[in-house]
Amino acid sequence: MSKKVLVLPGDGIGPEIVEQAVRVLDAVNAKFNLDIEHESALVGGSAYDETGSPLPEVTLDKAKAADAILLGAVGGPKWDGLDMSVRPEKGLLGLRSNLELFANLRPAILYPQLADASSLKPEIVAGLDILIVRELTGGIYFGQPRGIRTLENGEREGFNTYVYSESEIRRIARSAFEAARQRGKRVCSIDKSNVLEVTVLWKEVMEEVAKEYPDVELSHMLVDNAAMQLVRAPKQFDVMVTGNMFGDILSDAAAMLTGSIGMLPSASLNAEGRGMYEPCHGSAPDIAGKGIANPLATILSVAMMLRYSLDAKDAADAIEAAVSTVLDQGLRTADIASQGSETVSTSQMGDAVLAAL
Amino acid sequence: MSKKVLVLPGDGIGPEIVEQAVRVLDAVNAKFNLDIEHESALVGGSAYDETGSPLPEVTLDKAKAADAILLGAVGGPKWDGLDMSVRPEKGLLGLRSNLELFANLRPAILYPQLADASSLKPEIVAGLDILIVRELTGGIYFGQPRGIRTLENGEREGFNTYVYSESEIRRIARSAFEAARQRGKRVCSIDKSNVLEVTVLWKEVMEEVAKEYPDVELSHMLVDNAAMQLVRAPKQFDVMVTGNMFGDILSDAAAMLTGSIGMLPSASLNAEGRGMYEPCHGSAPDIAGKGIANPLATILSVAMMLRYSLDAKDAADAIEAAVSTVLDQGLRTADIASQGSETVSTSQMGDAVLAAL
Ligand SMILES: CC(C)[C@H](C(=O)O)[C@@H](O)C(=O)O
Ligand SMILES: CC(C)[C@H](C(=O)O)[C@@H](O)C(=O)O
Repeated sequence: MSKKVLVLPGDGIGPEIVEQAVRVLDAVNAKFNLDIEHESALVGGSAYDETGSPLPEVTLDKAKAADAILLGAVGGPKWDGLDMSVRPEKGLLGLRSNLELFANLRPAILYPQLADASSLKPEIVAGLDILIVRELTGGIYFGQPRGIRTLENGEREGFNTYVYSESEIRRIARSAFEAARQRGKRVCSIDKSNVLEVTVLWKEVMEEVAKEYPDVELSHMLVDNAAMQLVRAPKQFDVMVTGNMFGDILSDAAAMLTGSIGMLPSASLNAEGRGMYEPCHGSAPDIAGKGIANPLATILSVAMMLRYSLDAKDAADAIEAAVSTVLDQGLRTADIASQGSETVSTSQMGDAVLAAL
Repeated sequence: MSKKVLVLPGDGIGPEIVEQAVRVLDAVNAKFNLDIEHESALVGGSAYDETGSPLPEVTLDKAKAADAILLGAVGGPKWDGLDMSVRPEKGLLGLRSNLELFANLRPAILYPQLADASSLKPEIVAGLDILIVRELTGGIYFGQPRGIRTLENGEREGFNTYVYSESEIRRIARSAFEAARQRGKRVCSIDKSNVLEVTVLWKEVMEEVAKEYPDVELSHMLVDNAAMQLVRAPKQFDVMVTGNMFGDILSDAAAMLTGSIGMLPSASLNAEGRGMYEPCHGSAPDIAGKGIANPLATILSVAMMLRYSLDAKDAADAIEAAVSTVLDQGLRTADIASQGSETVSTSQMGDAVLAAL
């Protein structure tokens, strides 16, 4: 039976980078006889422009029916003035929550060929390989009550709720411990348990789940210290696990340590391993349409998709090897360009990966 | 009339570093005829051990009567098992909220003599001088409701509330704009307005207050991007203003960019400019009692206190110049030691600053 992939180009540079990634998907599909079918749908600001909703029902239905989803990026200043309920981000958040994609895996890896791109000293980041496991369907992103209300004294007040139940914490803990088993066997759980009750429960449940994984070591760190340690000595970490909001902040900081956020893919998985795959970077509206965006994070997201959701490890390996080859060849998009490298366009980078395949 | 300073050594390395800072305070008091009196009180874990409360009433009374407060640090693993309501941090949080110290000023400055200590490349951080203005008495740190409850299905759920009213946002906005006027005249307000309603209000009020300061430029940045930009190109910022939780995370990251968090003081001010002064670093229980902690952040906190709360600018300048002199002399505590420098103890560093005064 054929496997179905839903392609969601989204906004900004999304369409350009996804185009190259789909070419790569088509190539490995043919080469490895994977029997993958794909179709596209609208999400984000472009969906709002066309339909009035950032997540049209037809998109959601197709997403539910798909074996995996490849997403570009959503958002841009064009839609900044919209009401929160129809902003492009709601499309992304709606996909995450409707498909229960609670486990967001964000690797921060330094490619040896791009070691220079980091703003950190080489000895601090050489060989960096961290995995951030971020809870993606709970916490303050989805907590109720929320909104802006007018107080009795006439002034307004904004409020959101940071909430986690034991079962929500337990399942993301298991994702982190399972991932650590395949890697360095160390999990560092990030909380603010000296101030926030919700993270006191978080820490407790982490301890409880750790008992199921005696081969994995669990440690805890306060979020402010974690932000410091990522800057000071990021290689101390193997797997970091944290909630939605802290994960948003720390995973972006970790990705930027490599200096090549344009290289980093991510996976958002549900309990059955079905998932949505997207680059860690955003929609970069400032360079949209110029043909200079880096498609490699999206291409590597295809590799992650093949590995985690489509049972096609060989094809995933082949894509990752091809990306490594083009880096060895000195080809770089503008964001990762350095002295002595050849600067190529989005589609030229796609061509090069296809050639290397 | 004499000015009253309350000294709160606190826990961990607190007492050691505060001891040196008080020697420096005594010296400038005599030299500049400042007529400052000081007395000490208990706070944090050491207060809990002695009295059962991390913020004994006598401490709070003395704090309210003081013109300024000098704090070491609170907390440590010894008290980790305690109920949230009596943890050392509650002493600190209680002081902040009872004295309405809503404006937390955290400079992140790279001392040229310590440029090597940064984990970032020299060109990225040379000359770094950012001021983070963190709201300190509201947001999710103090929001109600909060706690851990049992749901109908029997599982527990932890919850906290992230809340800001217009007036709370307005006053911290003014602190940031006032500070920016004395510096580079640029304020960057950090929010997560694409997801959190409370920060939509935050952003709106920032815009409103900006109209009162036409000479200062206001920009906005999402918190995840801010965490990235601090790593990528921190010198783009002048003043950053944000809420309690984001400020906790970003100010620690910013401080660590300098590689010398042991050098950075902070001020927490109320509407009248009365304030509490403390180093940015924590209680470092692992090195407590060893006589190796760096007292310079606390000594520089004394300088900040003299400048902002005690109207003694000359004495503040003198302390800062003395600290610069000892750095020029190559004296370093272990945390900032580098090749070719002379490693000194906590008290030797205090001696050196006194000699330089
Ligand atoms: C676009 C935004 C809603 C999203 C988030 O905050 O989760 C993005 O920053 C991310 O990390 O995927
Ligand atoms: C000790 C702790 C409660 C405190 C905070 O989170 O505010 C500390 O991290 C700080 O930044 O001063």
